[in-house]
Amino acid sequence: MNKAAQVPVVFIGVGNVGRTLLRQILDVRSAMAGKTGLLLSPVGVADTSGILYNADGLTDRQLQAILRTRFRGNKVGSLPGAQRKRVLDDVLDDGVLLVDLTATEESMPILELGLKHRCGIVLANKKPVAAKWEIAKSFFDSPIIRYEATVGAGLPVISTLKYLRETGDRVTAIEGCLSGTLGYLCAEIERGSAYSAAVRDAKSLGYTEPDPRDDLSGQDVARKALILARTAGWQLEPSAIDVEPMYPESLSGIGVEEFMNSIPRLDSVYEAENKQAQSKEQVLRYIARVTPKGGKVGLTAMPRDSAWGALRGSGNYIAFHTARYDAIPLVVSGPGAGAEVTAAGVLGDIIQLAEYFRVKYEKRG
Amino acid sequence: MNKAAQVPVVFIGVGNVGRTLLRQILDVRSAMAGKTGLLLSPVGVADTSGILYNADGLTDRQLQAILRTRFRGNKVGSLPGAQRKRVLDDVLDDGVLLVDLTATEESMPILELGLKHRCGIVLANKKPVAAKWEIAKSFFDSPIIRYEATVGAGLPVISTLKYLRETGDRVTAIEGCLSGTLGYLCAEIERGSAYSAAVRDAKSLGYTEPDPRDDLSGQDVARKALILARTAGWQLEPSAIDVEPMYPESLSGIGVEEFMNSIPRLDSVYEAENKQAQSKEQVLRYIARVTPKGGKVGLTAMPRDSAWGALRGSGNYIAFHTARYDAIPLVVSGPGAGAEVTAAGVLGDIIQLAEYFRVKYEKRG
Repeated sequence: MNKAAQVPVVFIGVGNVGRTLLRQILDVRSAMAGKTGLLLSPVGVADTSGILYNADGLTDRQLQAILRTRFRGNKVGSLPGAQRKRVLDDVLDDGVLLVDLTATEESMPILELGLKHRCGIVLANKKPVAAKWEIAKSFFDSPIIRYEATVGAGLPVISTLKYLRETGDRVTAIEGCLSGTLGYLCAEIERGSAYSAAVRDAKSLGYTEPDPRDDLSGQDVARKALILARTAGWQLEPSAIDVEPMYPESLSGIGVEEFMNSIPRLDSVYEAENKQAQSKEQVLRYIARVTPKGGKVGLTAMPRDSAWGALRGSGNYIAFHTARYDAIPLVVSGPGAGAEVTAAGVLGDIIQLAEYFRVKYEKRG
Repeated sequence: MNKAAQVPVVFIGVGNVGRTLLRQILDVRSAMAGKTGLLLSPVGVADTSGILYNADGLTDRQLQAILRTRFRGNKVGSLPGAQRKRVLDDVLDDGVLLVDLTATEESMPILELGLKHRCGIVLANKKPVAAKWEIAKSFFDSPIIRYEATVGAGLPVISTLKYLRETGDRVTAIEGCLSGTLGYLCAEIERGSAYSAAVRDAKSLGYTEPDPRDDLSGQDVARKALILARTAGWQLEPSAIDVEPMYPESLSGIGVEEFMNSIPRLDSVYEAENKQAQSKEQVLRYIARVTPKGGKVGLTAMPRDSAWGALRGSGNYIAFHTARYDAIPLVVSGPGAGAEVTAAGVLGDIIQLAEYFRVKYEKRG
């Protein structure tokens, strides 16, 4: 057999998902090389602390060190602009796969540089695709940009939406439960837990961000809804998604501890909402709904004997209503968070882009 | 813009799905050519009545005639073997996409010839991939063979399974409701209809084959379960799937009319089964389950408040249990039959293979 062609991969951000992804790549790459002739080859790792780069591929020793410990690169991030750009210019070449595993807007300049150099771009980071349309538009409808893991983690959500459009279907509405954290919260309230106890438990289990309001605000769900809408071809602005948070405006300007101490007063509100739903054979779910005209994200009562009612705990659920899937929608569901499944979603994108750039890699040998 | 490269497509079998597919291709192809530089071009149509072929692409007049009427080709099917092979040798060339829309084993020789000539193969036909492993094995694990529409019609089932494997997940079990017809039957029995009335209604609505036993036998579901198992990497024989039909053995040797007249005597059996399930807060579903060791297909009582219970009418439901999707499976569900969604599943495969052969088409211009 011929030697496999090298597929250069650069990581931006190396936390839990990044290390999991690296391990998954090392697990699958020899089988993949045998089958496809393409060898995934991590060549660079960068974060705010700096950059580690080796054009021939990071050595086993370097890779193992990254897997074992938190990555610390050289202080490229603090280099003067011109020098930093020169380092990146060496790294970011035609066909290099640039994988953004951060959750920040700060990677935008690197991504834009990557696009200019015809890199492939894989995003787990929602920010670039959920920004104002003016900024985000360059990330849509490009064959060299993928972002499956931004919605539903490893669930085939974005790929399904693209398939529907490519085959000429017309998407009319997308509905879903897009937050494992808020799904857990709804399930706890449904089985009689107090709102404040459910939030406290979710926080201590690590299901929420350090400030639970980052989840309770619904903003992360709104970003996912926006990404779905834009993938469906609807050029909506973030302001077109109406967001109903799971805490009142009055508790937004205070510290985390004060917030946690204040929320028992909300228990009766959610208890009443839950009781009312139950009296109608309904359950509370935090639901996102988008159409070509805009979207809405918030707590909604749904029939108990529906698929929404059957949804358990932190599961995600995404329903596509289309011209062809009209009376009954096409649905993808399952766990929508966690390092393993998020990394798998990213890896799926990497494998697809590697195929897309195949000829380029084979020419280089 | 450069002229788009021609992607030659040959149809085998042109019934309802074939005409729908042809219309879908004509609907999407100019947008696709603009975006990807690849122009889907139907060059041939063949069935048992003969073959219509034009290397430069069938003319608009020819295409419209196929859309309007039932296709009748020249009697290539009845040509002596040597002549027939010569005609096919002209048609079946490297990179030609051969689309099997039949439901028969008779297309196997053409498919094998296609494989020999490095054609891309797209199957809506389950028979080749559900045959004995000795025969079927050449259709698995090849990058130039696709068969998404064989299970769940247009639902992304096969692609999801391939994605799970490619990213290094380990599938442990696959469960599903894979028959819209049997789903309809279960739903009717659940809401109190007699078995015989439900079968009669399904037959008159065209949900069943002319002989309803073709559906009630469970053989079609067993074939789908086998295709899923093999795609998961389990090289099972058809005999490894244990099938429990929805009628007794004693009614298998008789004519259709006699069968229809005999089934009222089964009403009490299914009524009792349904009542027993209901007394336990369960519902009857016709479920397929496969693992690396084999499979089982048959009527099963499932919890009413589960996703199985929430399944309505003819919807399909496919759950993948894997190392990563362990506590909660990854699920794809929705309508799993109908010409529009079946054709869309086939078209999705065609688009993917067109990308795979891109360089070949571009060289030819």
